[in-house]
Amino acid sequence: MKLLYPTSLVLDVDSLKGFAPSLHPYDVKQAIPEDLLDAEILITWTNSADNLKDAAQKMKNLKWIQSLAAGPNDILNAGFDKSIMVTTGSGLHDHTVAEHTLALLLNAARKFYEMRDYQSQGKWPQHLGGPQPDRPKGKFTSLRGANVTIWGFGNIAKTLTPHLQSLGANVRGIARSNGIRNGIEVYGEDKIGELLGKTDALVMILPGSESTKNALNKERLGMLPEHAWVVNVGRGTSVDEEALADALDQGKIGGAALDVFVTEPLPEDSRLWKTPNTIISPHAAGGRPQDSEALIAYNLRRFIAGQELKNVHIKGDASSMEIKSKL
Amino acid sequence: MKLLYPTSLVLDVDSLKGFAPSLHPYDVKQAIPEDLLDAEILITWTNSADNLKDAAQKMKNLKWIQSLAAGPNDILNAGFDKSIMVTTGSGLHDHTVAEHTLALLLNAARKFYEMRDYQSQGKWPQHLGGPQPDRPKGKFTSLRGANVTIWGFGNIAKTLTPHLQSLGANVRGIARSNGIRNGIEVYGEDKIGELLGKTDALVMILPGSESTKNALNKERLGMLPEHAWVVNVGRGTSVDEEALADALDQGKIGGAALDVFVTEPLPEDSRLWKTPNTIISPHAAGGRPQDSEALIAYNLRRFIAGQELKNVHIKGDASSMEIKSKL
Repeated sequence: MKLLYPTSLVLDVDSLKGFAPSLHPYDVKQAIPEDLLDAEILITWTNSADNLKDAAQKMKNLKWIQSLAAGPNDILNAGFDKSIMVTTGSGLHDHTVAEHTLALLLNAARKFYEMRDYQSQGKWPQHLGGPQPDRPKGKFTSLRGANVTIWGFGNIAKTLTPHLQSLGANVRGIARSNGIRNGIEVYGEDKIGELLGKTDALVMILPGSESTKNALNKERLGMLPEHAWVVNVGRGTSVDEEALADALDQGKIGGAALDVFVTEPLPEDSRLWKTPNTIISPHAAGGRPQDSEALIAYNLRRFIAGQELKNVHIKGDASSMEIKSKL
Repeated sequence: MKLLYPTSLVLDVDSLKGFAPSLHPYDVKQAIPEDLLDAEILITWTNSADNLKDAAQKMKNLKWIQSLAAGPNDILNAGFDKSIMVTTGSGLHDHTVAEHTLALLLNAARKFYEMRDYQSQGKWPQHLGGPQPDRPKGKFTSLRGANVTIWGFGNIAKTLTPHLQSLGANVRGIARSNGIRNGIEVYGEDKIGELLGKTDALVMILPGSESTKNALNKERLGMLPEHAWVVNVGRGTSVDEEALADALDQGKIGGAALDVFVTEPLPEDSRLWKTPNTIISPHAAGGRPQDSEALIAYNLRRFIAGQELKNVHIKGDASSMEIKSKL
């Protein structure tokens, strides 16, 4: 039994030893070599579309794909047989995305982007320093006392929330269903207007799908106070970019800190490069799975033992007993 | 008995009522009006040097000055009689300075300053986004797992530390005397070399005084790893700016995020405007005392009761019994 692991990130391979399958490195930008095409297990990270398409056609023994990406989209697009189990790297990116989101919020509140523009001209932005009012009403200048609303209340939100709270923010969530999660009040989408109206910073962490497309549209942008910031670290498609650019140009919101866009890289002719109070981050929040080995080893043991895996996206139909008997 | 409070910040005056002294607003940029010159208590915030000099000469009944600034320098320079008690606003700035320091550290790690330079040119900084190595050795890219050394381990450091720790940083301190403070290992200045050598980010929170002048000099900058960042939110004089500019120009440190400078505003001809990986923040970390009313009310009650005050910088010689008897 063979397990193929990618060389597109540094993995501590030693921590994957002790299980039955032999471990083989492979290049995610090339076709899988002939002698590895009979592998049963494939770990993927930043594989090229061609590599995955090739694997889908030629790897006839494949039983399980463990992606290290948060979502399964690249695997789903490659045309793998539906009998192959697919597990994702959901959770491996929580810490790094939460840190980046916190950084975007602080960048917005403390106006480092504006300070940088002054610095580039060799000018001291006196209006941003020295004595100033403490958290004036109708401005987002600190996380202390700020109302932060997180739309999409999954693992990243749960990782982010304690950092925001310890800095003094009041955190509430929006999700498909309402309720209390991790001690945070989460509103259903029917109560969205009520919540947006008292939001100082709206953090979007929605996944990309048809149902989340343009979730933040013109109407909902209009529900935000004029000083409110929008931070998007989920998927670009969840925000109507033209409506957002209008709101920024017309001063209807305080600003936007964006790590994701409908089209990436952001096209040269996008209005968002030049809209006021806009922070453009190049899809940099995640992209570096952490503790991948622990997830792989955990799932590998369960795969071999015929137990249910973590982060299953497609269950496949490889009966665990069959796998076991083949070892 | 009169208490003068400044109109240079919004104070909830109602929360100062219920004590014997009558409460009078005054303009900190003008001379104290004739009819208020007999006040016993003066609260100060961003007073002009002329205002304070004038007050020092004319306020013959003054017994106590409560500054809302973290340090007493403006009061000390005004020439008040040594018999007048001076208390500072130490502690009122801890949260806001800690938040700004955290923001500077994240700005450095996540390279928002570099992203902004690309944005200004309408360019997507591909090298800062997308898949990338997780916390590569010899780079400061995240607070997670980073060794953060705080030089000057007072109240701001104690407020900052839990935020850094919850993001995964290993925090150590440097102070005049070694020991464990708030669970953090604080090294004496004799062990500084050992600590600087394994530092990813050095946070300077030293007060301004002769003894802290150029504390971070050429020799000590040379002890830092080449990827280490220097963050200064204490006083500009604690860093040798020429040695720092040399280290930045020569790539001997990773970068510098500076909120304070020897001369403020930073002079037009300073090299620091243009040194690589340098973030210039216009003394914006503090400047907005928080919960001033609670400190004033606490000290006011104790002053009247003849008890020892909080944040005493100059004890003065007004016997509390004398004060009491005059009420």
